[in-house]
Amino acid sequence: MQLGLVGLGKMGFNMRERLREGGHEVVGFDPRPEVTDVPSLAALADALAAPRVVWVMVPSGPVTHDTIVSLAEVLGEGDLVIDGGNSRFTEDAPHAELLKAKGIGFIDAGVSGGVWGLAEGYGLMVGGDDADIERVMPIFDTLRPPGDRADGFVHAGPVGAGHFAKMVHNGVEYALMTAYGEGYELLAAEELIRDPQAVYQAWTNGTVVRSWLQQLLAKALREDPGLAEISGYTEDSGEGRWTVEEAIRLRVPVPSIAASLFARFESRQEDSPTMKAVSALRNQFGGHAVQRISKSG
Amino acid sequence: MQLGLVGLGKMGFNMRERLREGGHEVVGFDPRPEVTDVPSLAALADALAAPRVVWVMVPSGPVTHDTIVSLAEVLGEGDLVIDGGNSRFTEDAPHAELLKAKGIGFIDAGVSGGVWGLAEGYGLMVGGDDADIERVMPIFDTLRPPGDRADGFVHAGPVGAGHFAKMVHNGVEYALMTAYGEGYELLAAEELIRDPQAVYQAWTNGTVVRSWLQQLLAKALREDPGLAEISGYTEDSGEGRWTVEEAIRLRVPVPSIAASLFARFESRQEDSPTMKAVSALRNQFGGHAVQRISKSG
Amino acid sequence: MQLGLVGLGKMGFNMRERLREGGHEVVGFDPRPEVTDVPSLAALADALAAPRVVWVMVPSGPVTHDTIVSLAEVLGEGDLVIDGGNSRFTEDAPHAELLKAKGIGFIDAGVSGGVWGLAEGYGLMVGGDDADIERVMPIFDTLRPPGDRADGFVHAGPVGAGHFAKMVHNGVEYALMTAYGEGYELLAAEELIRDPQAVYQAWTNGTVVRSWLQQLLAKALREDPGLAEISGYTEDSGEGRWTVEEAIRLRVPVPSIAASLFARFESRQEDSPTMKAVSALRNQFGGHAVQRISKSG
Amino acid sequence: MQLGLVGLGKMGFNMRERLREGGHEVVGFDPRPEVTDVPSLAALADALAAPRVVWVMVPSGPVTHDTIVSLAEVLGEGDLVIDGGNSRFTEDAPHAELLKAKGIGFIDAGVSGGVWGLAEGYGLMVGGDDADIERVMPIFDTLRPPGDRADGFVHAGPVGAGHFAKMVHNGVEYALMTAYGEGYELLAAEELIRDPQAVYQAWTNGTVVRSWLQQLLAKALREDPGLAEISGYTEDSGEGRWTVEEAIRLRVPVPSIAASLFARFESRQEDSPTMKAVSALRNQFGGHAVQRISKSG
Repeated sequence: MQLGLVGLGKMGFNMRERLREGGHEVVGFDPRPEVTDVPSLAALADALAAPRVVWVMVPSGPVTHDTIVSLAEVLGEGDLVIDGGNSRFTEDAPHAELLKAKGIGFIDAGVSGGVWGLAEGYGLMVGGDDADIERVMPIFDTLRPPGDRADGFVHAGPVGAGHFAKMVHNGVEYALMTAYGEGYELLAAEELIRDPQAVYQAWTNGTVVRSWLQQLLAKALREDPGLAEISGYTEDSGEGRWTVEEAIRLRVPVPSIAASLFARFESRQEDSPTMKAVSALRNQFGGHAVQRISKSG
Repeated sequence: MQLGLVGLGKMGFNMRERLREGGHEVVGFDPRPEVTDVPSLAALADALAAPRVVWVMVPSGPVTHDTIVSLAEVLGEGDLVIDGGNSRFTEDAPHAELLKAKGIGFIDAGVSGGVWGLAEGYGLMVGGDDADIERVMPIFDTLRPPGDRADGFVHAGPVGAGHFAKMVHNGVEYALMTAYGEGYELLAAEELIRDPQAVYQAWTNGTVVRSWLQQLLAKALREDPGLAEISGYTEDSGEGRWTVEEAIRLRVPVPSIAASLFARFESRQEDSPTMKAVSALRNQFGGHAVQRISKSG
Repeated sequence: MQLGLVGLGKMGFNMRERLREGGHEVVGFDPRPEVTDVPSLAALADALAAPRVVWVMVPSGPVTHDTIVSLAEVLGEGDLVIDGGNSRFTEDAPHAELLKAKGIGFIDAGVSGGVWGLAEGYGLMVGGDDADIERVMPIFDTLRPPGDRADGFVHAGPVGAGHFAKMVHNGVEYALMTAYGEGYELLAAEELIRDPQAVYQAWTNGTVVRSWLQQLLAKALREDPGLAEISGYTEDSGEGRWTVEEAIRLRVPVPSIAASLFARFESRQEDSPTMKAVSALRNQFGGHAVQRISKSG
Repeated sequence: MQLGLVGLGKMGFNMRERLREGGHEVVGFDPRPEVTDVPSLAALADALAAPRVVWVMVPSGPVTHDTIVSLAEVLGEGDLVIDGGNSRFTEDAPHAELLKAKGIGFIDAGVSGGVWGLAEGYGLMVGGDDADIERVMPIFDTLRPPGDRADGFVHAGPVGAGHFAKMVHNGVEYALMTAYGEGYELLAAEELIRDPQAVYQAWTNGTVVRSWLQQLLAKALREDPGLAEISGYTEDSGEGRWTVEEAIRLRVPVPSIAASLFARFESRQEDSPTMKAVSALRNQFGGHAVQRISKSG
């Protein structure tokens, strides 16, 4: 089927390719002339036959919001917008409302799989009305991995449910990565273990802990044994933070997801003010030696 | 090749079957007459041609220790014992020493895969001397999953390294399970999500969080939606505790593994003394209402 | 000086008493006829000489908001409102704005001390303009504990700073209580310790861990050895949740405050869905026995 | 009464002074000639009238063990040894056994208070037989803070109970320090807060979180606003590690003490291997930019 696709970055570019390989007609828009198919959102709307379907795949937050506001202007009655970015699920209902005022439908779609999705397919979690989702199913079926639809696609609930499920997915992802990281650190710290890389490789088949992320870590360790070339400084993209915030709202204890989020915050600190305070306290009550900051350094 | 196998429980029984299917001659011993091939350890030793290889697959701790002590009596110069149970790695060097005094070799083998190993193969992490391990390689190659040896088998280092790697494997396993558990709880708590089961099913393909454990949780949720029939009461078998203890020895921070371990302890408490104290404190300073234990109940 | 006081609950009632003992003229309003001095907010405004100062001490959230909206109607140019409740600091700027439109000033005041404040004085953290705070200083000086003003009172910053400081105070309080709770649980679990109560009593003097909360826990343990009469079920009043949320906004790792918050959530669960999932997983991969929910029970 | 005191370091030196001020006759031994009263342990034994009481106040571990072994040689029937250091409680029973073979009694004493104990008195937690403890009570009564004996002294149970109680005391201390550290970091991160130091000062009186440690942190912040001169690098002296290990043995969940311990481990890492693995994973699946280690640096 025909699809407009706004945003041809790392994700959108690959999705256009996978969709075209699947036989769909994709008209892509991106501000970068070297990748775009049309010069503007208005041109995108013109290039599509009504009723149109436009998939938005741009950074979450203001860029997504502005894109949806702009689409509300160039699209019309009967058209449909899909937000496939990592928007916070609380933004979906307002976006659906805003578009509904123009007779435009809305679906929120969580898309997982990263750069590997092009070849392997994307895990999809969507929220919206049955009819809207039914209409876009040929697109979803091409994007998702081959096999049973239920294994790589879910209509999770009404508008917002797709992004909520994707947010939780990413929260779980944070915790899984920390788990594998802790395991690696333990193996690397114990002198009996000759080669932590080989252990991670051996875990890729037959073990209880095998997983896609586990395979990727084995690969990363093969490519850079000891991870000598990579810093522990780790960004976070919003969804880990939102997961803990929603957990608080829902009164769900999430110690492992929260620990993973805090570990990222810590990874970006030069020195920990909390630990400076602890160190100062030890010095106060016990006369314990503390490390002074060198003035000359 | 020929192998003696002591312990024909959940794991050993299946391993005997997989090894026999692989063309090996396995003589099994177990105290239960209905599963054993020979009536005693002495009979096991008699039934094997020297130099013998005997795989011990019994509960870790005293039972493993006693079995190894008994084997030291019935085996002799040039024989080899493999401890495939979940022994603490610190017990391996003493066991190797004890056997070495009789000229008997020792390998520690961590075996992962649970009840699925029979069909899919077992992930193996072994410790010991190169020559000993080379000698048993036909057995390892049959037990491990098909494919590249390095993907399901590792000679992790000297005696102790196999069980250390397996201990870390199980520590990571604890944390992975908690991560998926927290994700499930979040999905189940949010009313937008129509069916947490369907989300877990959809994560099995294409997503970043897909894994063998994730598939198993999806299966468990299909079989018992809402997990209505299962209690959160969760045992722990030693390796999670040891992982945190070794982390402390190695000064490795393991917040997510520790959180997972503590969550198991909590799951087995009727009421938390820590929280009784917190509740008592709130009552003391704030006059906050607290829940009194009913006397009549 | 003269002060209007709205809200004569557990906190407000005691504060009125302490202020009157300190020589101030307090006109209190509360919907409950048995404690109120005036029948309505309008009557309260009438009873005070302009320029008036009115202290609001009502439940945070909608009740505080509605009270401030109502005060904006009955107060006027030059008057001053103090929100002494546990409002989220993000609500302070809007309230200040709303009042400013009528020429009314605003101070946010965090008040600590619970039921003990009447006798010992209240720890005060306030936010607002210098001039406004100077004006109310006689009230603050009576409410706070005797001694150096800087030891029990702080002008923490502009509007919002007082409630922010109080929120952090309460977040820290959560973590302190958990720390003492964990210590109690350890003492109670170890059979060498004859009487955990006596240990807590002995910590009240001379030790590094001595504190006001520690004394209160010793008192609670004296009154109810073993805490047999109290349940671990523990409410949370908002500020612990907000502290973790603000920590996320500020990218501050707060593992111990978050652990304390999650422990409260857990204390209110019949069974943990996270642990049900973990238990289900163990059953799936290991054939481990799990506790089934009794149907007949 | 007369007392031998072995170890005149930071703690022992002050204790000798406090005991002498209390009217006791203290004979101190220390390898450093400038502080010792006698040249050797043998001379110490000679200087004391039988039956002797000798207080050992040396670093825990091998030094304490060797000291007790040496004392077993120079003391005799009816004498009594007190281990006042931070020994692991599991070492107490063997030490008691070893001394008992010579007819020498043993008390384990946990001593809290740090450098402040000289002036304020030391919190004491002791383990041993009633008769032994009764015999040393005049010493305990001088060392402990003035006031009710039960407020600064506890006979916690048989041999080992004193050090167990002290170990838990220090575990709680770790968690309290982290709690105050997190609070400080939050205040310092929020721009509304003009002066985190002033907030900590204001918490010293009237608030729920006031404590001795809290006062010390306020003092440290006064002396070094922003803690600019102190590094977060923080050692740990054993008791935090032991507390978590004992918690695991006793199946007591201690998330806040464990988090505090792990934070110390982290404070001593240049970069976190766990976070290097997480960073590597993000790079693998998402093509996320990572910080490379500079080669030229």
